[in-house]
Amino acid sequence: MQQVKVVLGDADLPRQWYNIQADMPTPLDPPIHPGTGQPIGPADLAAIFPMALIEQEMSPKQFWEIPDEVLQIYALWRPTPLQRALRLEKVLGTPARIYFKNESVSPAGSHKPNTSIPQAFYNQQAGIKRIATETGAGQWGSAMSLATNLFGLKCTVYMVRVSYDQKPYRKSMINTWGATIYPSPSPETNAGRAALAADPNSPGSLGLAISEAVEDAATHDDTNYSLGSVLNHVCMHQTVIGEEALKQMKMLGEWPDVVIGCIGGGSNFAGIAFPYIREKIAGKAVRILAVEPASCPSVTKGVYAYDYGDTAHMAPIIKMHTLGHTFMPPGIHAGGLRYHGMAPLVSRLVQDQLIEAVAIHQMECFEAGVLFARSEGIIPAPESTHAIRGAIDEALKAKEEGKEKVILFNLSGHGHFDMSAYDAYFAGQLSNFAYPQAMVDAALSKLPQVKL
Amino acid sequence: MQQVKVVLGDADLPRQWYNIQADMPTPLDPPIHPGTGQPIGPADLAAIFPMALIEQEMSPKQFWEIPDEVLQIYALWRPTPLQRALRLEKVLGTPARIYFKNESVSPAGSHKPNTSIPQAFYNQQAGIKRIATETGAGQWGSAMSLATNLFGLKCTVYMVRVSYDQKPYRKSMINTWGATIYPSPSPETNAGRAALAADPNSPGSLGLAISEAVEDAATHDDTNYSLGSVLNHVCMHQTVIGEEALKQMKMLGEWPDVVIGCIGGGSNFAGIAFPYIREKIAGKAVRILAVEPASCPSVTKGVYAYDYGDTAHMAPIIKMHTLGHTFMPPGIHAGGLRYHGMAPLVSRLVQDQLIEAVAIHQMECFEAGVLFARSEGIIPAPESTHAIRGAIDEALKAKEEGKEKVILFNLSGHGHFDMSAYDAYFAGQLSNFAYPQAMVDAALSKLPQVKL
Repeated sequence: MQQVKVVLGDADLPRQWYNIQADMPTPLDPPIHPGTGQPIGPADLAAIFPMALIEQEMSPKQFWEIPDEVLQIYALWRPTPLQRALRLEKVLGTPARIYFKNESVSPAGSHKPNTSIPQAFYNQQAGIKRIATETGAGQWGSAMSLATNLFGLKCTVYMVRVSYDQKPYRKSMINTWGATIYPSPSPETNAGRAALAADPNSPGSLGLAISEAVEDAATHDDTNYSLGSVLNHVCMHQTVIGEEALKQMKMLGEWPDVVIGCIGGGSNFAGIAFPYIREKIAGKAVRILAVEPASCPSVTKGVYAYDYGDTAHMAPIIKMHTLGHTFMPPGIHAGGLRYHGMAPLVSRLVQDQLIEAVAIHQMECFEAGVLFARSEGIIPAPESTHAIRGAIDEALKAKEEGKEKVILFNLSGHGHFDMSAYDAYFAGQLSNFAYPQAMVDAALSKLPQVKL
Repeated sequence: MQQVKVVLGDADLPRQWYNIQADMPTPLDPPIHPGTGQPIGPADLAAIFPMALIEQEMSPKQFWEIPDEVLQIYALWRPTPLQRALRLEKVLGTPARIYFKNESVSPAGSHKPNTSIPQAFYNQQAGIKRIATETGAGQWGSAMSLATNLFGLKCTVYMVRVSYDQKPYRKSMINTWGATIYPSPSPETNAGRAALAADPNSPGSLGLAISEAVEDAATHDDTNYSLGSVLNHVCMHQTVIGEEALKQMKMLGEWPDVVIGCIGGGSNFAGIAFPYIREKIAGKAVRILAVEPASCPSVTKGVYAYDYGDTAHMAPIIKMHTLGHTFMPPGIHAGGLRYHGMAPLVSRLVQDQLIEAVAIHQMECFEAGVLFARSEGIIPAPESTHAIRGAIDEALKAKEEGKEKVILFNLSGHGHFDMSAYDAYFAGQLSNFAYPQAMVDAALSKLPQVKL
């Protein structure tokens, strides 16, 4: 038989996170306080984050030691397998070799615990008793519930309503780990009440759910806020994916021609890509490809500008690719990709041409997801189908060109809690959303004016 | 950090299945033809099984080579991790060391693909075009859909109605892998139509769903039947679990005092236990403990006798522990354990005192499942919570006695498609079912008379 995967043991867990801020050709523009319009300092963030995470967010230090308490929990499922999609290659008839990093094996079903675990740990160390957070499709809310439970913290999750209704069992999972969950907009916060007053049937958005969670944290002393993507420290925690992949690919004697991930806020992509971008900056040839949903294409259609991270202007103003914080993305089933902005680190690296991006419609992604499920067995999360589609398109290009090519993508999660999306796809109830140009134009007219 | 798991690579996949028929102190009594009342020969089974599986079913050969085509697919997720439940130990305050074999990592979410893959392979080799099968909670139907899809076969699944209604997304999963699914009793077969005529609201049972699938296979030339548990070849395919566990425990320098699995039809238990029973027969000390649901306790309360495997008398009559083939088990959420009988191999080994059994009520099992989810992260299938409860009880006994003890159990699957059961548990809607003595007595009065 042919080898199809590389597994590593506890002893091979990465001992450090990689902070790409140390190596970027252009440094990040500073985050801006939404109230004062001035650059934010550590003290401004202390109301909602523990100092350890603020340091990680702002520091240019290249590597950070992973605490033993975090490693001990990572070891429940990490290192994750690196697998070769032999059967998919065969179905496609491609000369390309397709590898994927299987982040679906975590208890919560995605890469998200890579950061929820250290975030819960640092908050517990700081004496915090409760975490308030938001979730799109539910992957992040599950991951944070898992993490807070393991560190003895309470947790309140605001889940974007369209996904809350589409994916009822995410709520059950979150309850099983002992957290409380509300559909967002909720009557629990000022931000939520205002949104409900404007539209009682609002499907919600990540931007709005963030406002609710930030407000909850800011108005309760024992409570901190936690974000599952976008921020620098979140992207850094995810680099365990890429560090493991580097080692596993090396064990196979393989170097990827292209590294692919889906992007919504940018964290799983950062996780697999940043360690490879470090090598690219150091001179190794590799393409880095981000795949975003065509209905919410912040990188390929948005502007690179300062914008609010949330709809209620509670979160910092950050320089990023954005479609405008008032943009309400269509209700695609990849709820985790329905965010108006993009991680500042990813955005900056796109500007510096270290990252390419493409946008793909959901029907093409579901088609790829079903092909993957039928060839490799694993049913992917709708978000992850974007990376799969990206990998398939690269493999088909290799076939057209008759070229060998090594493709590596991140399978960010499984779709066990997204089966209603597959039901809708098979029932012919899904379609592609036209790019909402007018809505984006309107949203982009409302960007904040920042003068440094 | 402390080591919490042993992972093995593709190269460490077991190359042989272990057939315990070679080593049993007492041979099995022959299966009986339901029509003639005479012992069954290979030819009698050829209408619904391929010859390769019939040979495995009846042969005393100790080891069978695993075909390369099967190994290649096993390698998608096998060898599975052997994990130490360090955090659970701590919560329990036990001196026991608790290990579990994590079979939840397969694409279908359980141990079931260990046998669905070879069954699909041998059927494909025999020129069969379609498989008909039944499923209880849906684990087996999913596993067979995965397998038939990978080998290019069609698949029809009859799913016990109570579970079909409780777990709607099993249907979605089965559809994603391209199979057709009907709730059982269904209007598709004579057996189903008769059951619906008697009770249009019948919750169904595994015995009835088996009748439907066997009838479907027996009445279509290009179609074979496939069973996910009970039969000898099924138990044999599952022994990859125990063979891997033996190797992994050895790498840790550990020998278990007790090996634990849940039993419904007996297959996941056989998988982890049979290789250990081989060692036990060879002289090594180890307790082997089967945990069954108190509402369907075929081993602890049933009789050891010849009985029909299904309600419609289509399947062979086999000697086993049984509650009577007309017994309709209460609608517990561990649907995979709702079977009136027990694998003949497991039953025979119980008679020979190589296996102990206990029965536990569902509330105690769900309590254990939640404790496990909150300490180890993984949300277990309701079936698997029986094994967890058994392991916890052994660990608490060790604590009481102040004894070190090594406990190994099989985590047969995750509960991602069973979240409605957890919802019901948290909502206080679940309770224990009293053991239905009168129904069992009535069912036991209807056992077939077999004279050899």
